[in-house]
Amino acid sequence: MTNSPAKLRDSGTVAASARIQAAITDTRSGTELSAGTIRALIDDFVAGHTADHQMAAWLATVACRGLSPDETFALTDAYVQGGERLRFPRGGRVVVDKHSTGGVADTVSLVVVPVVAACGVAVVKMSGGGLGFAGGTLDKLASIKGLRLDLGPAEVHEMIDRVGMCITGQNASLAPGDGATYALRDITATVESIPLIAASIMSKKVAVGADGLVLDVKTGPGALIPDVDRAIELAETMIGLAGRFGLRCRVVVTDMSEPLGSLVGNALEVREAIALLNGASVSRLSEVCRTVARLMLQSADPNLTGEAAEIAVTQALTSGAAFRHLREWVKAQGGDVRMVDEPDRLPSALHRTTVTARRSGWVHEVDPRRVGMAAVHTGAGRLTHNAELDYGAGVELLRRVGDRVDAGDPVAVLHAATENPKHAVRLLADAFTVGEEPCAPAPVIHRVLANTGRD
Amino acid sequence: MTNSPAKLRDSGTVAASARIQAAITDTRSGTELSAGTIRALIDDFVAGHTADHQMAAWLATVACRGLSPDETFALTDAYVQGGERLRFPRGGRVVVDKHSTGGVADTVSLVVVPVVAACGVAVVKMSGGGLGFAGGTLDKLASIKGLRLDLGPAEVHEMIDRVGMCITGQNASLAPGDGATYALRDITATVESIPLIAASIMSKKVAVGADGLVLDVKTGPGALIPDVDRAIELAETMIGLAGRFGLRCRVVVTDMSEPLGSLVGNALEVREAIALLNGASVSRLSEVCRTVARLMLQSADPNLTGEAAEIAVTQALTSGAAFRHLREWVKAQGGDVRMVDEPDRLPSALHRTTVTARRSGWVHEVDPRRVGMAAVHTGAGRLTHNAELDYGAGVELLRRVGDRVDAGDPVAVLHAATENPKHAVRLLADAFTVGEEPCAPAPVIHRVLANTGRD
Repeated sequence: MTNSPAKLRDSGTVAASARIQAAITDTRSGTELSAGTIRALIDDFVAGHTADHQMAAWLATVACRGLSPDETFALTDAYVQGGERLRFPRGGRVVVDKHSTGGVADTVSLVVVPVVAACGVAVVKMSGGGLGFAGGTLDKLASIKGLRLDLGPAEVHEMIDRVGMCITGQNASLAPGDGATYALRDITATVESIPLIAASIMSKKVAVGADGLVLDVKTGPGALIPDVDRAIELAETMIGLAGRFGLRCRVVVTDMSEPLGSLVGNALEVREAIALLNGASVSRLSEVCRTVARLMLQSADPNLTGEAAEIAVTQALTSGAAFRHLREWVKAQGGDVRMVDEPDRLPSALHRTTVTARRSGWVHEVDPRRVGMAAVHTGAGRLTHNAELDYGAGVELLRRVGDRVDAGDPVAVLHAATENPKHAVRLLADAFTVGEEPCAPAPVIHRVLANTGRD
Repeated sequence: MTNSPAKLRDSGTVAASARIQAAITDTRSGTELSAGTIRALIDDFVAGHTADHQMAAWLATVACRGLSPDETFALTDAYVQGGERLRFPRGGRVVVDKHSTGGVADTVSLVVVPVVAACGVAVVKMSGGGLGFAGGTLDKLASIKGLRLDLGPAEVHEMIDRVGMCITGQNASLAPGDGATYALRDITATVESIPLIAASIMSKKVAVGADGLVLDVKTGPGALIPDVDRAIELAETMIGLAGRFGLRCRVVVTDMSEPLGSLVGNALEVREAIALLNGASVSRLSEVCRTVARLMLQSADPNLTGEAAEIAVTQALTSGAAFRHLREWVKAQGGDVRMVDEPDRLPSALHRTTVTARRSGWVHEVDPRRVGMAAVHTGAGRLTHNAELDYGAGVELLRRVGDRVDAGDPVAVLHAATENPKHAVRLLADAFTVGEEPCAPAPVIHRVLANTGRD
């Protein structure tokens, strides 16, 4: 968002301006744009030849009218072609990638990456920070002292060779067109568009260039796309898109009607991941982790059966191999490994405030947005772009949907730097709905889709 | 378009940003915005609290999804309320206003304003400059030496009192929100949206506050809205909107499938208007002028019959009263009245290039966009915002749709500062399509609509 009119005045912007105005009119009237036009729109914008307000108008038009599969492919390709690509050597280790559309207490990546690495399949994952009420893997890992999360391409390759896994921040040189348009979408309410989401995610994955990819598309009130049918539509769009790039891809559509794990916050989620890698089980989170890990193994080896993959995952967890991979990786990227060995060394909040049930009955709802916002208000997330995080802050959920409670029972604990932070406590208390009738939680896995890695 | 991110950083923009993002989402999903929200969107933008890219995204969303009648009214009202209003004294002279959506050789205003004034009904008209291939009344009048076109409200009132008519430039203090959003629409391909056009036009008319209003909505290839059904939809939207503001309004939907008059260009069109006021007749142009003048008289006096109005119009033309009103008005606003008395004194181009028919037959088409662009390329219009006009330049059409021609017959003359300006000559020649079969011109009046001046 730096293409102000003043800056544009000096550039050769007449052709770019005419091009994007024609594109806005065409997209609005349902006339398909050519791949060349779409490539030019993105290149113009990245080069600073198109004004922000013109790109915002095109994105808003796309958010209304959608894009055809060909246009979505062309947009993704334009993002990819405008930047660098990681290239893993042919004939080297099989490398897989994993992405989630984001949610609350979505600790899956921290668990499955070392599990899959322990099964002998290399994993590369470029992550982002938290967005709104949803946490980000990068912020969570930043709670481990010393851990480097800004690796360059050469270092990524080195990590893959040395420890079989790598998690690092999104590299700005990959798919720069996506970065530039995303910043604009974020403040013009054009994030929630299926083709724009699909192109954004897939461009970064194609630029990374792993052999296989697993996407976890969240659905429900705590997801970017609450509606399950639209989430499945996004999953199908992404499966098709990956196929056109020759990328083997599996997508799992999972539930985000309540927080996935029991801990929300940066160090708290690292702690929960370490517990799982040490053999603990957290009902809904464990199920998604096992499914995603299995799909990652299958995306690496299309001949692997689901059963064989499940057995490998169980073995990686029970043998301690997955935990050892996390430990080795933290060490290799410069992190304080004592925090992994003794999670009590991780940052923790000074104060705890217990939230209790207002009435007796069964928990009908644990609203993930309210829980996420309660965590954000303690400092676990950012209310403004530059806000500093409190790594120890967050929420501990003691009860989940379907649990029986009596009035006055503790249902959650808020971890914060201050005592009884009223707004966050109120949000957290309001997240719980208790009803008179027993109630079953929603199924956690909605759908699994796969392509063959060919168009 | 001055709300750059840098400028915004210092302002209290958080609420404005949240408000417009919610509005974009609501408009996209079909949730109606309240009048208060729409007012706040426009006020925020005019105050510099909303970024251009956010407003552009909302306008692009409106261009896709439309606005309800209540929302269109609220937007128009927000434009009006944000600025000043002319106020004509109650019990004073009846004052009417006239507006055209613009076209090629659309010399109607220059004829009807003095005709209606000569019939004893005062006319106030705030005009704009040319846009793209279509000329603007203000540019045409600027070819009369000395004529002042920047009158303040007090001077407008004075002209109405003294000569019963006033034509001047759009006053920036009326409906400033329209001015600000229009500049953005112009470069983000969101001009062609019915509710946005209706709100833009009507806000300026409501701010002027005449007793009656006549709108000339052009349709056909040379109009902003080429499709006749959509032009009628715009006419109906504006009739309804005017009614909600208590403004008596008549709309005529007229043809722009070929240039309306026979002269295109600034001084050339002034010359054609003077000829008509001196009793000349130009087939299609005269018909529209008579209809618009009649409707203006009827919008001033709802009890006046169409026949009586026609008689008054004829009398004003044949008696010379209309011409005398133009003359008095030019004098009163400081213009060189000798140019009206002797039109040869008006600016004229040095060179004339005759364009001939390429084959024999009947003229099937005189493409108004190509004719308009040929005139623009001679300097009669602006290719860039700051370009200087050549007031004498333009196009003289010798043949119209339906005329018989032989190959080599002159069909048009290009008036320009240079000899044989190739691109313009080519455009003008390409504007003519000659076919083998006889061909009748399209009807010039498509539809007349009226409201009662009440909601």
